Amino acid sequence: MQISDRIESTLIEVLRRARLEPAPPKLAAALNYSVFPGGARVRPQLALSVSIACGDDNPNLSNSAAVAIELIHCASLIHDDLPCFDDANVRRGKPSVHKAFDEPIAVLSGDALIMIAFEILGISSEAHPHRLPPLIAALGRSGGMPFGICSGQGWESEPSINLSAYHQLKTGSLFVAATHMGAIAAGEDPEPWEELGARIGEAFQVADDVRDALEVSKEIGKPTGQDLAKNRPNAVTELGLGGAIEKLQDILSGAISSIPSCQGEADLCEIVRKQAALLTPINFKKQNL
Amino acid sequence: MQISDRIESTLIEVLRRARLEPAPPKLAAALNYSVFPGGARVRPQLALSVSIACGDDNPNLSNSAAVAIELIHCASLIHDDLPCFDDANVRRGKPSVHKAFDEPIAVLSGDALIMIAFEILGISSEAHPHRLPPLIAALGRSGGMPFGICSGQGWESEPSINLSAYHQLKTGSLFVAATHMGAIAAGEDPEPWEELGARIGEAFQVADDVRDALEVSKEIGKPTGQDLAKNRPNAVTELGLGGAIEKLQDILSGAISSIPSCQGEADLCEIVRKQAALLTPINFKKQNL
Repeated sequence: MQISDRIESTLIEVLRRARLEPAPPKLAAALNYSVFPGGARVRPQLALSVSIACGDDNPNLSNSAAVAIELIHCASLIHDDLPCFDDANVRRGKPSVHKAFDEPIAVLSGDALIMIAFEILGISSEAHPHRLPPLIAALGRSGGMPFGICSGQGWESEPSINLSAYHQLKTGSLFVAATHMGAIAAGEDPEPWEELGARIGEAFQVADDVRDALEVSKEIGKPTGQDLAKNRPNAVTELGLGGAIEKLQDILSGAISSIPSCQGEADLCEIVRKQAALLTPINFKKQNL
Repeated sequence: MQISDRIESTLIEVLRRARLEPAPPKLAAALNYSVFPGGARVRPQLALSVSIACGDDNPNLSNSAAVAIELIHCASLIHDDLPCFDDANVRRGKPSVHKAFDEPIAVLSGDALIMIAFEILGISSEAHPHRLPPLIAALGRSGGMPFGICSGQGWESEPSINLSAYHQLKTGSLFVAATHMGAIAAGEDPEPWEELGARIGEAFQVADDVRDALEVSKEIGKPTGQDLAKNRPNAVTELGLGGAIEKLQDILSGAISSIPSCQGEADLCEIVRKQAALLTPINFKKQNL
């Protein structure tokens, strides 16, 4: 089965269980709405690619680790879109959850997806229980405080902010969790995989900043220019458009060189190259990554 | 160390770690504000009492299980108080988190506490990793969908609702998790402890309904009469005040009889009796529980 099929079929099964009785119908519908159809699923693809490169001896646990990361990502998008944060009407090309449903359902959808993300790791780890402590610790660290998404988002409420720390917390942490958890789920040491996750996360944030500046709103399916409007840190405002694109290419080259020697190294390099091509703005794709 | 000291000192340590650099200062302050000073800490006391009754062979894991439950409870209170739900200005006798800080900080505080609740179980379980899968599954089930707090809260967005199912999801599920997780953390089978959790949870909800009806707002530190104002399900509106109090006493007697035979059975009965006395409305305390 292809990586993307494994991710989608696991998500379908996890969401099917979450919507069983006695789930309230509106919230159940909102969970499905917020997860399907997905975006590029970059994070779970990265996690599962690393699991496969590491031997993938427990595919059920690898799938759950990948999907747990995607669910935390979906939860953060739902909450980020709320009126008290970005007040975004559109996400992935359709009305955001609080617009399609309402604010209570959006708050609860995010909460429920966070809980489900952890729960599926617990449910899937009985064959290898000793892999669960580091999986849970990695997911909690990447989502929470002081090193995760919540911490990054919280910095937006502060009067001043460090660009690099902000990006690392809000975006990088979940990419690092993706490579770490992909390795742990397959029984391998996560540490050699840290740089790959960190670099792809950084590249992803810079690419998003470049897209934001170019206002290619159709591609990312959400209103653009938000960072500028809200005076948030952004690589383009710091380095200029050319500087930001140069930085993006440097980061992605470094990501590929950082991949540790392993059984599935060549396949993983190819997957990362493909992801890199997706990240590169249309006008600059001709340059070789 | 007393049960309450173990809970408070574990909470202090967990929150201290969550506020380390690079935590954003406002969000860090809000986490502390939302957890200290606490309410009655009924759920973690129940969990830790069960762990002790089961032998408490890993006090660190028992403490973390108890505190994980309390953090999920605190998170649900913060989100329930938001303007889009109860719009409550006061919680535990002081301004609610979104009033003392703001809505973004309140949403993030809840999210972060949920993540931290799971994370501390991962961090504390290395000595007994095989206990972690059922601990995580129990916490996820009790907080999420379709069997947990999110599911219960989601039913408030539906046009019609089943009183008993609603209470079981919104309140009962976390009490059942408390007894289950208390037993699992101490290496015991959780199933014999289910009835104790279910009955105390039911009692707690009925007691809250009775207090709500009596409008003893100083005791519970939040505005009362909310259920009536919002036409939410309530044992007093269904059974009358006398009927609800009678039901409360029946449930608590059943809770005490349900305690399984174990080393610490007598101590646990005494703890449950004390909790029961706290739950019983002032005017009815003279009756023997």
